[in-house]
Amino acid sequence: MTAITVGSDIRVELVDHMGTDRSVVNAARVSTKGEAAHTPWDAEKDPGLINYLMRDKHGTPFEHNALQFFVRAPIFVYREWHRHRIGLSYNEESGRYKKLAPEFYIPSVERNLVQEGKPGHYVFLPGTRDQYDKAVTQLSHAYQIAYDNYEVLLHQGVAREVARMCLPVSIYSSQYVTCNLRSLMAFLSLRTRRDAPYFGLGQEGPLATTYDSALFPSSPMREIEMAAEKMEIVFAELFPVTYDAYCKHRRMGP
Amino acid sequence: MTAITVGSDIRVELVDHMGTDRSVVNAARVSTKGEAAHTPWDAEKDPGLINYLMRDKHGTPFEHNALQFFVRAPIFVYREWHRHRIGLSYNEESGRYKKLAPEFYIPSVERNLVQEGKPGHYVFLPGTRDQYDKAVTQLSHAYQIAYDNYEVLLHQGVAREVARMCLPVSIYSSQYVTCNLRSLMAFLSLRTRRDAPYFGLGQEGPLATTYDSALFPSSPMREIEMAAEKMEIVFAELFPVTYDAYCKHRRMGP
Amino acid sequence: MTAITVGSDIRVELVDHMGTDRSVVNAARVSTKGEAAHTPWDAEKDPGLINYLMRDKHGTPFEHNALQFFVRAPIFVYREWHRHRIGLSYNEESGRYKKLAPEFYIPSVERNLVQEGKPGHYVFLPGTRDQYDKAVTQLSHAYQIAYDNYEVLLHQGVAREVARMCLPVSIYSSQYVTCNLRSLMAFLSLRTRRDAPYFGLGQEGPLATTYDSALFPSSPMREIEMAAEKMEIVFAELFPVTYDAYCKHRRMGP
Amino acid sequence: MTAITVGSDIRVELVDHMGTDRSVVNAARVSTKGEAAHTPWDAEKDPGLINYLMRDKHGTPFEHNALQFFVRAPIFVYREWHRHRIGLSYNEESGRYKKLAPEFYIPSVERNLVQEGKPGHYVFLPGTRDQYDKAVTQLSHAYQIAYDNYEVLLHQGVAREVARMCLPVSIYSSQYVTCNLRSLMAFLSLRTRRDAPYFGLGQEGPLATTYDSALFPSSPMREIEMAAEKMEIVFAELFPVTYDAYCKHRRMGP
Repeated sequence: MTAITVGSDIRVELVDHMGTDRSVVNAARVSTKGEAAHTPWDAEKDPGLINYLMRDKHGTPFEHNALQFFVRAPIFVYREWHRHRIGLSYNEESGRYKKLAPEFYIPSVERNLVQEGKPGHYVFLPGTRDQYDKAVTQLSHAYQIAYDNYEVLLHQGVAREVARMCLPVSIYSSQYVTCNLRSLMAFLSLRTRRDAPYFGLGQEGPLATTYDSALFPSSPMREIEMAAEKMEIVFAELFPVTYDAYCKHRRMGP
Repeated sequence: MTAITVGSDIRVELVDHMGTDRSVVNAARVSTKGEAAHTPWDAEKDPGLINYLMRDKHGTPFEHNALQFFVRAPIFVYREWHRHRIGLSYNEESGRYKKLAPEFYIPSVERNLVQEGKPGHYVFLPGTRDQYDKAVTQLSHAYQIAYDNYEVLLHQGVAREVARMCLPVSIYSSQYVTCNLRSLMAFLSLRTRRDAPYFGLGQEGPLATTYDSALFPSSPMREIEMAAEKMEIVFAELFPVTYDAYCKHRRMGP
Repeated sequence: MTAITVGSDIRVELVDHMGTDRSVVNAARVSTKGEAAHTPWDAEKDPGLINYLMRDKHGTPFEHNALQFFVRAPIFVYREWHRHRIGLSYNEESGRYKKLAPEFYIPSVERNLVQEGKPGHYVFLPGTRDQYDKAVTQLSHAYQIAYDNYEVLLHQGVAREVARMCLPVSIYSSQYVTCNLRSLMAFLSLRTRRDAPYFGLGQEGPLATTYDSALFPSSPMREIEMAAEKMEIVFAELFPVTYDAYCKHRRMGP
Repeated sequence: MTAITVGSDIRVELVDHMGTDRSVVNAARVSTKGEAAHTPWDAEKDPGLINYLMRDKHGTPFEHNALQFFVRAPIFVYREWHRHRIGLSYNEESGRYKKLAPEFYIPSVERNLVQEGKPGHYVFLPGTRDQYDKAVTQLSHAYQIAYDNYEVLLHQGVAREVARMCLPVSIYSSQYVTCNLRSLMAFLSLRTRRDAPYFGLGQEGPLATTYDSALFPSSPMREIEMAAEKMEIVFAELFPVTYDAYCKHRRMGP
């Protein structure tokens, strides 16, 4: 039998990208200029245009920029991720085509472990250290048994796609995901909290003090939010002006 | 601890639908007539028009018919299903919002259990009865342990979304899925074999004798094919003329 | 030569539909119940659930309801309409397949005729009666000449798809459009003004007094708004509880 | 009044792109390797993998490559183009936001001018030189009158979006279009003929001798095919191995 490994990380790495903040401006200006734009970035006017586009829900100029990521995350994260259908493309590791590696997700000690409230009003709270230690032991134990069963089934000659039926949703899997900038913002606005950290141009996070949970979407699951936060950092670096406008407007509820 | 139940079925039930074969014809005829069609079904001309649309890849006239299904299937089936993004809508049971029931999938004795070949050329073969019995025992055993661990974690006060991390991908879950007829055909053409049973108007299955596996897509996973076959029966009953044209053309490779 | 006819109407007729307000509730409840819902409409709880879904951007439960419309509108309206790509299906009359009828759009006397301001801040104002009369005469004259040229070209044996190159974007064309309820709401929120008439359950329009144009999207073109308003009336009649929630939340800017 | 200009060209210029043939291979290999690929291009195996993906309709690995184009084409071309909804993003010049320039499309002398047959079986034939000359004169004349009327209406203070109602569908407009490689191939397969020129790796066009029009889709409109051909040349240059596989398989009927 193979000893499993456990981890609490979600890997997100930029693989490739297309466009800049200026691509957004160029796409928008074709409406009013009617020509391919070859003018340099205008630090006076262009941030204002991007801000206006974001505020007034002109979404299409943000679709000409693209980002490709490599991700390693547990299956239960992909279960939520792949429900995003528009403007995102996925290729994921297959349990039909290969034997899955014995890597499983356990929550880190910072992850809120206790759920209170009813649907639509859940609050997640820390729990005790004892509760955490017990949970990690219990999960790790369960994962090892599941993987042992997987290997026994494979050893008996059972097809990979049947043997994997006993594997838990916490097993790690890899994917490439490519999205345009508009679909990335839609993903982030649904999968990060409204009072999320701000990775922007130096200003104070514009929303930090005004958060009213009664007005805004329910909390995302922490593990997909961890993936989203890593994508958000890349977004802030690649397209800083658009990111600033996103934080100001889109996060308030797209 | 709760005793689990196991099953080998995929439930698919029609909930609602919109349109008829005539809706396809009406949508197509707006191109050439330019008026809303109020003529009765023309048994001479209308099947020929539907056949022509299917053959020549005129897909849009098939998008005005819709079907809604209720499905109960294991999670590993939804993992493939939800990769279909265009023209399909999903709402699924949530392991964050409710305690999942102890129902798990095991293969039936008819399910090919053994996988041979390399990616793109897999063949699935029956395996021995002994192999099957051992696999079912092993899987059921693994499921019971996983569910026991799930209940222990819940009992310790751990949030449902954390406790469920140890549950296997074979646990049953429910969904509503709504699709238009074009997206249903795209789904079926990728998730059933080319020599699949024919549920049509009485003729011999048109493809049964001409199947050349070297020319066509790899085999679908049997469990999603089981769901697809049940949807295909509903399709054949609701839209028989379109179904006949689908069998003749689309299945040959969309 | 054929005498043209002019009109100022956009026809929108419901052809078919699927689902009720209860379909929205059933789809949402599968998350927390995990079974197909067979309970009757609960007038206490169900409107509150729909309201919650709308407020917190849970869009998918609204995708299981569908509406099919027949539309007759000028081409410049379809030019905007067909930019809506997600969850909408179109079949339109073809100038390649048939000779187009001599029907053209002219603005009605109520249509604001004068444009002031710069992109993003346009205001449309009435203009004078004299201005209107002159514009209608000028347009009608131009349409007649264009259609005369079209017929001459057809008479010379030129293909319909070439002859129609001289026809103006105001010529009427027919389409079927089918959309789900979520995509309809997205369409309406972008193609009607925020202080649009309210076709709901008897209450005063909730937004009438709070409109601040500085905060919300630019005005839609009046002619696509006319189509949207007619779809909105159908929406209010078919799905009144969802419509009320839409007016309360989505119109504020989805 | 302003003298119009006429032209017979469709401009298509590559603005930006993302990925290479190797991106396709990397995305596909995550299924079987489960890791981000860092191996160099394998001239032995990788073309075979791309060929297999294309043949067996594994579409998703082609969605991680993107192309952005600037296009200048008449409105009747965009009317067909914008019906492609999935995986394509558009921003187009606006007749609401700017005065449109007096540039109009006329067919070149090579464009087949005569249409014969019935819907689904049209054939386009050259026509006589006299027919062509008359058609061009007639069209140019109609365009000048239309543009004169447009300017009169603008001069009378009528809003641009009203004045443009008299402009013909042959007026040029600009757009940015961004698409992924899968959606580009879907576009090309529907908007070029099956016996289209081959821009590939030096081999004879594989389909040139086997074309049977009775088995395949109707002819595309020549003007959108002109745009498609220019995109196809860019495709062949940027992603030559994928292009070869596309010509071999996808063009035969997607």
